[in-house]
Amino acid sequence: MDHVVVMAGGSGTRFWPESRARRAKQFLDLTGNGPMIVETIRRFAPLVPAGNVWVVAGEKDRAHLSPEALGIPPGNLLLEPEGRNTAPAVAFAAAAIGRRDPEAVVVASPADHAIGDLKGFRSVIRKSMRLTRKSGCFLTLGIRPTHPATGYGYIERGEPYGPPADGVFRVRRFAEKPDAKTARRFLRSGRFEWNSGLFLFRLPEFQRRLEAHLPEVRAAFDGAFRLAGKPGFPAALRKAYRSIPSVSVDHGLLEHEPEILVVPASVGWNDIGTWRSLHEFLGHGEAGNVLFGDVIADDCRNVLVRSDRGVVAVLGMDDVVVVRSGDAVLVCPRSRSEEVKGIVDRIKSKYPEHA
Amino acid sequence: MDHVVVMAGGSGTRFWPESRARRAKQFLDLTGNGPMIVETIRRFAPLVPAGNVWVVAGEKDRAHLSPEALGIPPGNLLLEPEGRNTAPAVAFAAAAIGRRDPEAVVVASPADHAIGDLKGFRSVIRKSMRLTRKSGCFLTLGIRPTHPATGYGYIERGEPYGPPADGVFRVRRFAEKPDAKTARRFLRSGRFEWNSGLFLFRLPEFQRRLEAHLPEVRAAFDGAFRLAGKPGFPAALRKAYRSIPSVSVDHGLLEHEPEILVVPASVGWNDIGTWRSLHEFLGHGEAGNVLFGDVIADDCRNVLVRSDRGVVAVLGMDDVVVVRSGDAVLVCPRSRSEEVKGIVDRIKSKYPEHA
Repeated sequence: MDHVVVMAGGSGTRFWPESRARRAKQFLDLTGNGPMIVETIRRFAPLVPAGNVWVVAGEKDRAHLSPEALGIPPGNLLLEPEGRNTAPAVAFAAAAIGRRDPEAVVVASPADHAIGDLKGFRSVIRKSMRLTRKSGCFLTLGIRPTHPATGYGYIERGEPYGPPADGVFRVRRFAEKPDAKTARRFLRSGRFEWNSGLFLFRLPEFQRRLEAHLPEVRAAFDGAFRLAGKPGFPAALRKAYRSIPSVSVDHGLLEHEPEILVVPASVGWNDIGTWRSLHEFLGHGEAGNVLFGDVIADDCRNVLVRSDRGVVAVLGMDDVVVVRSGDAVLVCPRSRSEEVKGIVDRIKSKYPEHA
Repeated sequence: MDHVVVMAGGSGTRFWPESRARRAKQFLDLTGNGPMIVETIRRFAPLVPAGNVWVVAGEKDRAHLSPEALGIPPGNLLLEPEGRNTAPAVAFAAAAIGRRDPEAVVVASPADHAIGDLKGFRSVIRKSMRLTRKSGCFLTLGIRPTHPATGYGYIERGEPYGPPADGVFRVRRFAEKPDAKTARRFLRSGRFEWNSGLFLFRLPEFQRRLEAHLPEVRAAFDGAFRLAGKPGFPAALRKAYRSIPSVSVDHGLLEHEPEILVVPASVGWNDIGTWRSLHEFLGHGEAGNVLFGDVIADDCRNVLVRSDRGVVAVLGMDDVVVVRSGDAVLVCPRSRSEEVKGIVDRIKSKYPEHA
């Protein structure tokens, strides 16, 4: 059977003031279609039964994680006592899935990305599931780049895998976020895809790789899961997490993998990493404005204005982000929304109640 | 004796969201020194006894008008049942002052302007009081223009009045707000002053002029004041206001006056007509930023940011106004703060609760 693991442990401050210390991006309704985590789960609904969708998230976010609202069985909500990056999160889900379905094919997906072309996305994922089951290889979803982005990691394609018409390639290498010049070179070469952060594997191969490259992670979950379903499990899990290192799937597993496949796709993917990328994803309205809530934007172009209460009036502005959330307001140029992180640090020290 | 009449009946929307339908500009603390009306009264404190300061304001604003907070005797607060522009407001005060002091010299001042050079201002007013008592003429305070403003009325000087060293002139004419070209011509000529809206007169001459040019106003107050101090006065006043036309001192009286004097002054006057002029009046801080309340302005220049609750963070913006007041937020370029009026009309129709 196929399973989906939604990795929802992230925290982030680039959506301040909407995101706060206690409300990470995946729990925000940024696009107007509900919290991003719910939108993510809904995206996979036609592909696997609801009982095969798993969410790995932080215990600290429990308030935002009602299984009913997420549409998954309560047992499929896997709460990590502490965040340890993606490799332990996926290992946690792998251990849980393995008890029911040791031969499963697993799609591991970030909880906080957006997809414009749902139909195309589902078709690519279906194809990727089949290919993963057949090949036993790790497989990553590559995104055909539309511009020389410096905010994403890249994947360099090697030789085609199987018939060239299938459009599947071997991964030659993973490249970290490049500088602007390198990004332009990547784009020109035609051989690079953006790394979507979504990947697939077959459970036996995953466990074998975990054993080989992160044996302490494998051992910790094996130990804890001996008590799975028993009263001692939460305590065992907490104990396990104390010894588990913080490591990403990319660094901890994929880097050591001799053969990984990549399926390049053009499915309107956007990591919604900043207010600017949200605007890019949504900004097709009149004059390029994106407006949420009780907002007046007079003679504005390419503005993103959000208000969750009261009224926000913006007059004669171009290319700005104006967000009112709770008791806080942010105003900055779209092009500088990456720097919101820095503002949050200032707020933490000056107005900690608003961070 | 000399008296001061503070004309506080104005209403305005150009300071939205700080000013609302029920809180006009003169009741706002825009400069950080208290409500403008209180600052105005304080400005005259060394010049006349507190018992000689009168405030004429709208009954609708009674909530903002505590005689204790204003520092005047309760009887010196003159509440108009309805607004009728400045001529009736001053006539009201003139009738009240006349009962105590029929030979008074009266300074009539707007309640919502700012003065940078207090010492210079008081010295000019002292001189103007003396001159008014001696000459019996209407006298206006002219402001030496610093730039070709199109938002102010102008006063053209004629011949010097008295010794040229006194720096007092006859008024040749009052000019309405000019267009940009005319304003530049005014400035070049060296003969034009901004009309500060502040003027002086002697009571007997004022009443005579009122009788001549606005006899219905004179008659209405004469009638009502027959009941002054008696229980029937409020009703008589309300009745009087129903028949009183709406007319300004400039149009109703000064235009008909053959000899008016003007005393040009450079006293850091600013009518604080818009967020932009408030910024100009206050904007001498680091990088030209003016910040009030819990505000973070990172890498900003020439911004005006105010917050009356919560935190407002502005990053990388130049020349903008950001105001949070109550449940409303305004963002606009400094140069367009005149247009806030128009925004308020939109808000009135779309979100009346925030207008």
